[in-house]
Amino acid sequence: MILPQLSHLASICAKSGITQAILSPGSRCAPISLALIRHPLVHCRTIPDERSAAFIALGMAQQLNKPVILVCTSGSAALNYGPALAEAFYQQIPLLVLTADRPAEWIDQWDGQTIRQDNLYGRHVKGSFTFPDEAGLPDKLWHAKRLVKEALALAKCFPMGPVHINIPVREPFYPEPNENYAFEITDLEPVLEVQAGSQILGTDAERKLRNQLSSFRRILLIPGQQRPNPKIYAVLADIVREQKAILVTDTICNMSQEGSVAYHDFFIGDPARQQEMAPDLVISFGKSILSKALKQFLRKHPAAHWHIQPEGPVSDPYKNLSQIIRLQPETFLPFFLAAANPVDPLFEKRWMQTNEAVRNHLHRFLGESKVFGELQALQQILPKIPAHGKVHLANSLAVRNVNFLGRPLRDVEIISNRGTSGIDGSNSTAVGCTFTTKETVSLITGDMAFFYDRNAFWHQYQLANLRVLLFNNQGGGIFRMIDGPALLPELEEYFETRQKLTAEHLAAELGFDYWCVADLASLQNCLESFYQKSLKPKILEIKTSSESNTRNLKLLKENIRRHLDSTNL
Amino acid sequence: MILPQLSHLASICAKSGITQAILSPGSRCAPISLALIRHPLVHCRTIPDERSAAFIALGMAQQLNKPVILVCTSGSAALNYGPALAEAFYQQIPLLVLTADRPAEWIDQWDGQTIRQDNLYGRHVKGSFTFPDEAGLPDKLWHAKRLVKEALALAKCFPMGPVHINIPVREPFYPEPNENYAFEITDLEPVLEVQAGSQILGTDAERKLRNQLSSFRRILLIPGQQRPNPKIYAVLADIVREQKAILVTDTICNMSQEGSVAYHDFFIGDPARQQEMAPDLVISFGKSILSKALKQFLRKHPAAHWHIQPEGPVSDPYKNLSQIIRLQPETFLPFFLAAANPVDPLFEKRWMQTNEAVRNHLHRFLGESKVFGELQALQQILPKIPAHGKVHLANSLAVRNVNFLGRPLRDVEIISNRGTSGIDGSNSTAVGCTFTTKETVSLITGDMAFFYDRNAFWHQYQLANLRVLLFNNQGGGIFRMIDGPALLPELEEYFETRQKLTAEHLAAELGFDYWCVADLASLQNCLESFYQKSLKPKILEIKTSSESNTRNLKLLKENIRRHLDSTNL
Repeated sequence: MILPQLSHLASICAKSGITQAILSPGSRCAPISLALIRHPLVHCRTIPDERSAAFIALGMAQQLNKPVILVCTSGSAALNYGPALAEAFYQQIPLLVLTADRPAEWIDQWDGQTIRQDNLYGRHVKGSFTFPDEAGLPDKLWHAKRLVKEALALAKCFPMGPVHINIPVREPFYPEPNENYAFEITDLEPVLEVQAGSQILGTDAERKLRNQLSSFRRILLIPGQQRPNPKIYAVLADIVREQKAILVTDTICNMSQEGSVAYHDFFIGDPARQQEMAPDLVISFGKSILSKALKQFLRKHPAAHWHIQPEGPVSDPYKNLSQIIRLQPETFLPFFLAAANPVDPLFEKRWMQTNEAVRNHLHRFLGESKVFGELQALQQILPKIPAHGKVHLANSLAVRNVNFLGRPLRDVEIISNRGTSGIDGSNSTAVGCTFTTKETVSLITGDMAFFYDRNAFWHQYQLANLRVLLFNNQGGGIFRMIDGPALLPELEEYFETRQKLTAEHLAAELGFDYWCVADLASLQNCLESFYQKSLKPKILEIKTSSESNTRNLKLLKENIRRHLDSTNL
Repeated sequence: MILPQLSHLASICAKSGITQAILSPGSRCAPISLALIRHPLVHCRTIPDERSAAFIALGMAQQLNKPVILVCTSGSAALNYGPALAEAFYQQIPLLVLTADRPAEWIDQWDGQTIRQDNLYGRHVKGSFTFPDEAGLPDKLWHAKRLVKEALALAKCFPMGPVHINIPVREPFYPEPNENYAFEITDLEPVLEVQAGSQILGTDAERKLRNQLSSFRRILLIPGQQRPNPKIYAVLADIVREQKAILVTDTICNMSQEGSVAYHDFFIGDPARQQEMAPDLVISFGKSILSKALKQFLRKHPAAHWHIQPEGPVSDPYKNLSQIIRLQPETFLPFFLAAANPVDPLFEKRWMQTNEAVRNHLHRFLGESKVFGELQALQQILPKIPAHGKVHLANSLAVRNVNFLGRPLRDVEIISNRGTSGIDGSNSTAVGCTFTTKETVSLITGDMAFFYDRNAFWHQYQLANLRVLLFNNQGGGIFRMIDGPALLPELEEYFETRQKLTAEHLAAELGFDYWCVADLASLQNCLESFYQKSLKPKILEIKTSSESNTRNLKLLKENIRRHLDSTNL
């Protein structure tokens, strides 16, 4: 039987421009899925593992910058969305989650696939709604339609995020062969648009901020994770050129540029250097940053901290948040450029010269090194990544390793699940991204993240532009790099979780092209053909040793420290 | 640094007999894991994928009949436990879930792996506790210890289930090389025992029930899902022998026996037969039953319904629950045997003769059939399953198919995740079971459930006694068997989710022994060696066609119906 409230749901989504859906199979969700499948404007894909399905939707929504629809059946299926919804919540990615449910009277009556789905996702969605379980009365139909509009508006307004509609469905689930969806009628349904306003600084506030700014001469500007934005990028370039602030960038902020500091992880943790580099004002915008050393430095040297964010809750990651400025960064930064004084020259010199010295020394060290380590391999790989592509960096070592290398990636968008920083959905997020672009999507990942989320590839959809660069050191190498676990007798079994898998079998199973390299020459040889266009996705497995990577990084850090000491930096 | 509250946690668990733990790797959870790893009485295993880890713990706890400890790090890791915890909640399996967390002041401050973990599992745990984040004050240490005892007591009391302790942990996470856990002291900590009372019927209640029973002559006795229980089994045998009730059993109740009705799925849905088979009293105990046809029959023909359960909430699956009897089934059933009159002979004859006719006809049909379908294959396999073993039946088709065959499995325990009936953790549950026994563990599963949960096998632990019987029909065959989706043009892409995987690659990757058969002779040939002892686990992939399975079952059902009609049953 066709339920009118579900035809309306599909029509409201389509008319609101929400036209991508990821479905997982089930009987109770069939009426929801069919309404979307049969709507001429909605494009549906089916992914069997709901955990991967949700991360795939997240990877798509991240690129499309609007909600992607998720549909699953009742019961534990819905709980498999949990990890991706938390990531979407903290990464502020919009999703419309539709979970089929039994009607309320059947909950806890020992029927199959029945759990307590109301508010299932707790505080990791922006809103949670219960659909009316029938639409016989006009007010019930209005209620259903209103909920869809309300949920979409909530998902799309800043900060964006996932919303959940729990949809009780009664049998019969399937339309009769001669039944048709009345989309012509439902398409006339008006939708709810939200027109965001733009905040500007009033004259008084502007005068006040200008006054305050005049007293600061040691300003750090720290963009957090965000998508590329040419406007912001350009004004940051001006700020750097006019030395109005030190711009400190990491790989996930998509704002690294000539003149930004990107190697701070190698020097900011050293107490001997911190005094001269301590800021009097930190200005941040965007979401999280990668560098733990930078966070600890800022917590240890409290400065005024202004965060630029038009709406929503603001965090205090450096323990000294002193001003929230309710503006878009695009509005604030030009004002700052005009209003701020150039920073103290000594402060500027310390930061820039140290950063430059590390950069030169690091690349020389890696170039001259005879070791085949992850950093050496990345130094070869990153410049070969095609321009205009997307690069997904998995947690936890992959994103850190790329970040160590500063700014070797240009004209690509860097994506990484740093909302909750889990390893659980990296493959799927990259797959979702692949569904939205014809450009190359490179996934740089480690073996733990890769095998964890292998169900990302368990479906029939085309992934020709996907390139997986898998660093396989047979375990969670990051644990060996931390002094604590590295010294424990429990390291290999309980922390690294040494494992023997290679991606070869998986590639054979999936019909992916597969390369495997274990030395620099082989890597260099294959990179060109690896990035050639093809009909099949490709996996390049790079075998390194966790022990030698650890030694390698330690050596590099010592080397840099000695070099800085010897040059009085 | 070693935290005293965590040493006490390990000691209290060990002293309470809770000595099995499944850990997933992480830094923030390291202090919890290490306290358990280093406790001499606690046995730990590490499983990287938390979703599988939780189902493995469930599979162990189900067999051990006491809580298994789960430990994961903070962030989305904890959400991956969600599906297994819902299954454990509804299947009433005790688990002690320990999630590491950042201290409260760091929540929502854009640090990695940080989500809102308080009450993370909502209404799918029996209790949710927050550990004190330090134990400097004596009352804080007492609080910590008390919470562990309280949580364990809650998990273990009827109905058992999962409990959650969220444990905020501050750095440093790792002990110094010379630091030792003071288990000698903490081992002196008293633990909290709960001595369950046994309810008995008072004289008045007994008289009342005896009176009520005297008026019923058409009694159905329906055990729900439960573990084997020789005492109950024996009194059920007496009840059947003395014809005090019709015993209707399915494969998951572990109570099928000579004289119980097990083929009702083939006849009870037929309206023509229902009038004569309608009961005047239904007596149930245990959890859910499998047969949708039986449920619908009972809803359509309301009878008095007594449910026997000593404590906790009771469901009303047949829409006519009229009496809850707060006794153990072991206490009630002997009373019933003594007090009840024999059932109406006509009623008895209808049920037993029809059941017997189906049984004979079904096995003849399958024996004579030339088709290689799932039922034919199962008919060969089931008698070969070694006695005293454990058989895990995956959702959704595997458990139904085995159930169609009535009672071919004897002296084995049947396990199936029928709490929420998801496909998401079948492999892992069977793996967990394997960790608790030296007997053969057979997992009978379909391709969707098998590939969904393939991370169950991603670890280094020994599974020599595991046998996987994988029915691969390349998709969710159950959708083809339901008239609704079977008629839709969307069937293959969106419901069956046709997929091409075979387990061959996975077996090679994991180093499992692997057989593949696609006809009856090959199946018969390999079964003996498949069940021989070995050092490696084994997968037997049985390739069948979804289309022919559907035709086969339809033909069988028609055949049985015709046979029953022709014999006036």
